[in-house]
Amino acid sequence: MPVAKVVQEKIILGLDPGTNVTGYGIICVTGNRVTLVQFGVIQLGKSGEHALKLKKIFDKVITLIEEFHPDEIALEAPFFGKNVQSMLKLGRAQGVAMSAALSHEIPITEYAPKKVKQSVTGNGNASKEQVARMLMQVFQLKEIPKLLDATDALAVALCHHFQKGQTKSKAKSWEGFLKENPGRIK
Amino acid sequence: MPVAKVVQEKIILGLDPGTNVTGYGIICVTGNRVTLVQFGVIQLGKSGEHALKLKKIFDKVITLIEEFHPDEIALEAPFFGKNVQSMLKLGRAQGVAMSAALSHEIPITEYAPKKVKQSVTGNGNASKEQVARMLMQVFQLKEIPKLLDATDALAVALCHHFQKGQTKSKAKSWEGFLKENPGRIK
Repeated sequence: MPVAKVVQEKIILGLDPGTNVTGYGIICVTGNRVTLVQFGVIQLGKSGEHALKLKKIFDKVITLIEEFHPDEIALEAPFFGKNVQSMLKLGRAQGVAMSAALSHEIPITEYAPKKVKQSVTGNGNASKEQVARMLMQVFQLKEIPKLLDATDALAVALCHHFQKGQTKSKAKSWEGFLKENPGRIK
Repeated sequence: MPVAKVVQEKIILGLDPGTNVTGYGIICVTGNRVTLVQFGVIQLGKSGEHALKLKKIFDKVITLIEEFHPDEIALEAPFFGKNVQSMLKLGRAQGVAMSAALSHEIPITEYAPKKVKQSVTGNGNASKEQVARMLMQVFQLKEIPKLLDATDALAVALCHHFQKGQTKSKAKSWEGFLKENPGRIK
């Protein structure tokens, strides 16, 4: 009697939260094969009330979770920025995206932007275009994606897939990041 | 036949989110009467993983919402702080607390700390102890509350009650705050 081969399928949702645009990218990992499921952006606009933008992020992430049932969530999370105002807004957007995951008990892993670039292109200082071109190759896209915020989210999902089995170099948490990148904290 | 007097009861949940301690205070407004329902803190500790702290805030706020069914939520929300790192962490804690409210579709109003002090004591620069003493009077507490983080949360709930009908001076939103306090933004 032939033995059936069990291939586990895993869905990873990558998120790049921001209060103007929040990017998302969903990939499916089957054995060693990685395929693109969907990617896009939540357009929040430059105007409008801040709390409403947060609600939009929360609702959309919940919708993505309920539609695609991700097993894991990877978050692109810058740890520093221009000023305290922008960091508070960014922190809120991150907190809202994380809450959507927490509410469905999906594990979250955070990655600094440099780590994502390093993982996907081999160069921590790669441009957005370089990241996009690498994603074109991996996912066999015919055109370079126009929405670069969406490619960042797709990249963090791919980075999370690549990091599996390489726990040593993975910034698992805030504390992990601080330990690994002491020079980057001002 | 006597006409029954309808007195509407309203529950307000005040929250003072932080990643070390998150305070909460629940008040009940019946006509002109305000009573204290419960207040306390969510102790998050100085150690432990950041994501787990956020999960603890989210879960506890959800528990409070499901237990007390607040009609409105008032958030003590500082808009500036020491550095970008602390603001990112604070933003995340605020975002998580706001998400818990958003997930239950409860309206949130934000108040800057100075606004809360002004509303409760008449002095925007009042000390935590002065705020606590005023709360003792309003709620007829026999002792001064020991947990000052909890009194901040109780104060923002009371501030929210006082502001009803005084919409002109209420910082309804981030944008509202920025307009009202241009000098406080660095």
